[in-house]
Amino acid sequence: MLIVMQNSATDADVKNICDVVRSLKLESHPMPGAQRTAVCITGNKGSVTPEHFANLPGVKEVIRVSKPYKLVSRETKQDDTVINIGEHAVGADFTMIAGPCSVEEESITMRLAEKIKKSGIDFFRAGAYKPRTGPYAFQGLGEEGLRILAKVKQELSMHVVTEILDTETLPMVAEVADIIQVGTRNMANTSLLKQLGKVKNPVLLKRGMSATLDEFLQAAEYIMAGGNYNVILCERGIRTFNDHCRNTLDIAAIPVLRERTHLPVIVDPSHAAGLTRFVAPLTLAATAAGAQGIIIEAHDKPTEAYSDGQQAYEPAKLSALQQQLHIVREAIAID
Amino acid sequence: MLIVMQNSATDADVKNICDVVRSLKLESHPMPGAQRTAVCITGNKGSVTPEHFANLPGVKEVIRVSKPYKLVSRETKQDDTVINIGEHAVGADFTMIAGPCSVEEESITMRLAEKIKKSGIDFFRAGAYKPRTGPYAFQGLGEEGLRILAKVKQELSMHVVTEILDTETLPMVAEVADIIQVGTRNMANTSLLKQLGKVKNPVLLKRGMSATLDEFLQAAEYIMAGGNYNVILCERGIRTFNDHCRNTLDIAAIPVLRERTHLPVIVDPSHAAGLTRFVAPLTLAATAAGAQGIIIEAHDKPTEAYSDGQQAYEPAKLSALQQQLHIVREAIAID
Amino acid sequence: MLIVMQNSATDADVKNICDVVRSLKLESHPMPGAQRTAVCITGNKGSVTPEHFANLPGVKEVIRVSKPYKLVSRETKQDDTVINIGEHAVGADFTMIAGPCSVEEESITMRLAEKIKKSGIDFFRAGAYKPRTGPYAFQGLGEEGLRILAKVKQELSMHVVTEILDTETLPMVAEVADIIQVGTRNMANTSLLKQLGKVKNPVLLKRGMSATLDEFLQAAEYIMAGGNYNVILCERGIRTFNDHCRNTLDIAAIPVLRERTHLPVIVDPSHAAGLTRFVAPLTLAATAAGAQGIIIEAHDKPTEAYSDGQQAYEPAKLSALQQQLHIVREAIAID
Amino acid sequence: MLIVMQNSATDADVKNICDVVRSLKLESHPMPGAQRTAVCITGNKGSVTPEHFANLPGVKEVIRVSKPYKLVSRETKQDDTVINIGEHAVGADFTMIAGPCSVEEESITMRLAEKIKKSGIDFFRAGAYKPRTGPYAFQGLGEEGLRILAKVKQELSMHVVTEILDTETLPMVAEVADIIQVGTRNMANTSLLKQLGKVKNPVLLKRGMSATLDEFLQAAEYIMAGGNYNVILCERGIRTFNDHCRNTLDIAAIPVLRERTHLPVIVDPSHAAGLTRFVAPLTLAATAAGAQGIIIEAHDKPTEAYSDGQQAYEPAKLSALQQQLHIVREAIAID
Repeated sequence: MLIVMQNSATDADVKNICDVVRSLKLESHPMPGAQRTAVCITGNKGSVTPEHFANLPGVKEVIRVSKPYKLVSRETKQDDTVINIGEHAVGADFTMIAGPCSVEEESITMRLAEKIKKSGIDFFRAGAYKPRTGPYAFQGLGEEGLRILAKVKQELSMHVVTEILDTETLPMVAEVADIIQVGTRNMANTSLLKQLGKVKNPVLLKRGMSATLDEFLQAAEYIMAGGNYNVILCERGIRTFNDHCRNTLDIAAIPVLRERTHLPVIVDPSHAAGLTRFVAPLTLAATAAGAQGIIIEAHDKPTEAYSDGQQAYEPAKLSALQQQLHIVREAIAID
Repeated sequence: MLIVMQNSATDADVKNICDVVRSLKLESHPMPGAQRTAVCITGNKGSVTPEHFANLPGVKEVIRVSKPYKLVSRETKQDDTVINIGEHAVGADFTMIAGPCSVEEESITMRLAEKIKKSGIDFFRAGAYKPRTGPYAFQGLGEEGLRILAKVKQELSMHVVTEILDTETLPMVAEVADIIQVGTRNMANTSLLKQLGKVKNPVLLKRGMSATLDEFLQAAEYIMAGGNYNVILCERGIRTFNDHCRNTLDIAAIPVLRERTHLPVIVDPSHAAGLTRFVAPLTLAATAAGAQGIIIEAHDKPTEAYSDGQQAYEPAKLSALQQQLHIVREAIAID
Repeated sequence: MLIVMQNSATDADVKNICDVVRSLKLESHPMPGAQRTAVCITGNKGSVTPEHFANLPGVKEVIRVSKPYKLVSRETKQDDTVINIGEHAVGADFTMIAGPCSVEEESITMRLAEKIKKSGIDFFRAGAYKPRTGPYAFQGLGEEGLRILAKVKQELSMHVVTEILDTETLPMVAEVADIIQVGTRNMANTSLLKQLGKVKNPVLLKRGMSATLDEFLQAAEYIMAGGNYNVILCERGIRTFNDHCRNTLDIAAIPVLRERTHLPVIVDPSHAAGLTRFVAPLTLAATAAGAQGIIIEAHDKPTEAYSDGQQAYEPAKLSALQQQLHIVREAIAID
Repeated sequence: MLIVMQNSATDADVKNICDVVRSLKLESHPMPGAQRTAVCITGNKGSVTPEHFANLPGVKEVIRVSKPYKLVSRETKQDDTVINIGEHAVGADFTMIAGPCSVEEESITMRLAEKIKKSGIDFFRAGAYKPRTGPYAFQGLGEEGLRILAKVKQELSMHVVTEILDTETLPMVAEVADIIQVGTRNMANTSLLKQLGKVKNPVLLKRGMSATLDEFLQAAEYIMAGGNYNVILCERGIRTFNDHCRNTLDIAAIPVLRERTHLPVIVDPSHAAGLTRFVAPLTLAATAAGAQGIIIEAHDKPTEAYSDGQQAYEPAKLSALQQQLHIVREAIAID
């Protein structure tokens, strides 16, 4: 931590800071400058926060230097985390996930899953429990949805990705899901994150819509601190002043996350785009920026979809899209 | 809903829109203009969303006209909602709430509560369960914290405001809390909101840090739709590019919310300010803008506070602050 | 400046940093910590920037400590700057400025100015040159507008505030204007700022719509560095994701600016509100937060205004508003 | 335009709206709904704005339907604009531009230009006039810089791209520049845009750091309305709450702009990344999203660069990067 003093701060003010630092069992290093003094603090084990100093006399600003996370950090673990699911290795192989926003009635869901499987994609996404903005929107099929997902899994040998909303439904969801998804609205639901630290299923954690990368990584740290090391990070667009798309895909988050953490980083282009016709360019861009996978909303009859039809991608086009992705990945592999 | 057609849209495209509208049991009103046609849709009961039309041929843009909430709306209920707690009427009287960020050990908490009570404030806030950004920060005293709050309530005849994090702890929290607080991180935790619709305690709902006012009102609608009509809205600052304070207090949200809804609107200046010395100006500004109450973090030894000490207000100064607020409220009452 | 090293950085990396620092005629202070080393740099005269170090081997992050402005800083000059215009002292007295968005035809402009004068306000604002978002919107009356402003000045003994768009029109504008206004779109127009450093007129500098306070203060520094010390800062709302008002009034910017600088700080509630009915609450809030003046758009026939009629305040109501402001200022003067 | 009435609006309120519409020589179409009436307005030629209606009795909201630009619109001109510069066709060929942030002393600049030319890039960028955030930063070599650029042009047969800051220096800049660049700070400098409408040089217009796409397109419309149809749009990152990169590259802006306008769209990855090591992933992503060119800051001795060295790309690596771009463009060309 670095404490910057006002240029009117007295020697007594600086001494007082050093005393407080010592009382916290840390070391202080005053650094007199031409205009003002700064005090460097070392030995910080994470328990000391800016609030210990911000109101002390003579203090102008308190600057945090070290990052507040450990297990997720690339500095703690150099090698990429690889999560094996069936024969697929998330973090090593490129991971394609597709499916409708919500689980729909059995015949529709099976039809969609078959089409997606046929395009060569083994991961099927669909929400049984939906966190909608308003209470009058469709809230998901619930347990019936989980039953349908179990059928997709069994009959089509696909891996299933579905969202968790609360700890009450966690046991049921954990039984079906190959990957449990935490949506953007629940990224900071710390009670839920703690429970997810105790299950064995890999967790796909979406970035909160206004979370900084450090907050995002700390949410992952909650899960890892609980004992579940299989966390997949998902960038899905942030909230900005932009009005031309649903969310602003933060493309730079991909290389920055890959530098800061060893966890796999995938991208959801659908919620960023908000409209079907912008899904493909965002998918290609995310791959070019170094994403290790894509989770995409797909439906063959978008105007009849239970939810989010306006951004649904045509399953029949998934094969062609994957071919393009393949070439893009070859391009970025050149060194 | 209004559907704006591309200027290259054909008559067949427009007819197709009208057919889809009719299939949804709504009425369409094509409106040919000099450059393009727009189609107005009437009879919408909320079940139709832009996704039904966004991908149809010839469509340029779909504009939502009606608001997606009902019970919270000032158009549904003209008069201000008033929530009686003891002898205090939230929404009619000006509501002052103060206390430390976290419940601290019994002797400290009682000392703080007494000081706050002495300043004329009857509502005591303190978190027993804390939703911290990272897993290694202090997470609250939990049940022990609730026990201490019960003591504050009983011995000092104060009303207690405390935060809920999950449905597991809801029964215990609901037993002690005069007002249950939902923090900014959980504003969109729809499972929790649904459960809060079933309890009798008034709910203080904080705005999500990047929620639009319509999303904020829909979160309140979740609680009201469940049967709990006693919701208090709390503006606490939003996330922007600003780096000079913890959150950007959205002062205009106050008059706009008071126009859109009948629910009481209060303000948390502490999380917006982030530093003690900016709490008073924000408190005065919020009151001048029409806030119906203030919830403030207070501590007499900020550098020893368990959390958020850097923004804690000195309890000894609360009396003077209230005098200032009283004058400001007189000023705005002039018509 | 503080350079934070990666925890994999070698002693040679640290030595290399120190060598570079020395080559820049500065002093380095390596600070080894448990996990990583930080290097404090002192003696910085402002010529060294993070780019000198960001790409060096082993560097994780470069943190700037000192502020990049001098003349505007409260640390340089403790006392509030006071700008005398006629008998009015901006920065000491509370400064009310009102008028239409654009200068309109002579008879309308004179009528509006008279009404404003009658309410007790001596500063008349109106744009002769208008920086509109699109080229087909009304661009102002130009020189004819300046002529009308001169008449307002002479016949009504009012002080005139009008906007500057470029250096070509600066001589003409400077002849009429008692205060030259720089709009939000030109806050970072450094060529214009440099020219304004050479005139004698006080300058009212509006904050850019996405400027941090440090960028805002550096824009003021441009003017002061040129020799013109009479700069008035104006907060007018920033751009955020909010969709309920035209701009998000950054109320906390007021106390923060007043701490960082000695320059007068006023507020434009009209462009923040965007709608007439929210102008009064924002005016009262800004005053409560410590603003030293208000600049307000006023028109008696808003639907006929040449521009921005939807946010125009009724001149007949300005007297009552000032009474309210007076009481609010009494409230905040209590200590 | 669509005017949404309050549900308490009377028939007289609606009639009043229609009367105002008629007085503006437009047609009104009242549309009674279950809860409220909306009034559609047709015949709008762009002269009518929401401010004509926002304050009328009974009005809840005014929604703008048509876009406020014409010449830039893809609806006005279907085919991509192609700008021929030498043998290169911007908008048809993929356009690579590279060079240092500032023009540096002659020998350095020539060395850099040669290296860039050798990598196969014919467009050299460098600023002679620099719009720096603060007045004490290096402001560019000015006329001497233009002289050096002229030499690059003549001796190396490169095309030169350089920034314009004001109309005073426009004649000199226009004489040297093959493309005149308008920086993010001046996107809304309407006086400058108008002057650029009168020159013959193509203009590279950077998006303002908080401009919506419609505002960006209107800035281009200013130039085209003046008679200069050769405008190149440049996305360079927007300002958001993100703290992990200098600006947030708005990758979705690329396909959205290409849909809305026929003008060429290129991307500046350097100012978005802010750090050298993130420039390549953003370049590849922008290309994958459909950008028609890249403008990149390049320097062979970043720590000695006059400005922005921390984001400078090594010229020696430009060949390899172009090979990767070539493959990415082949991938997206597949249909």
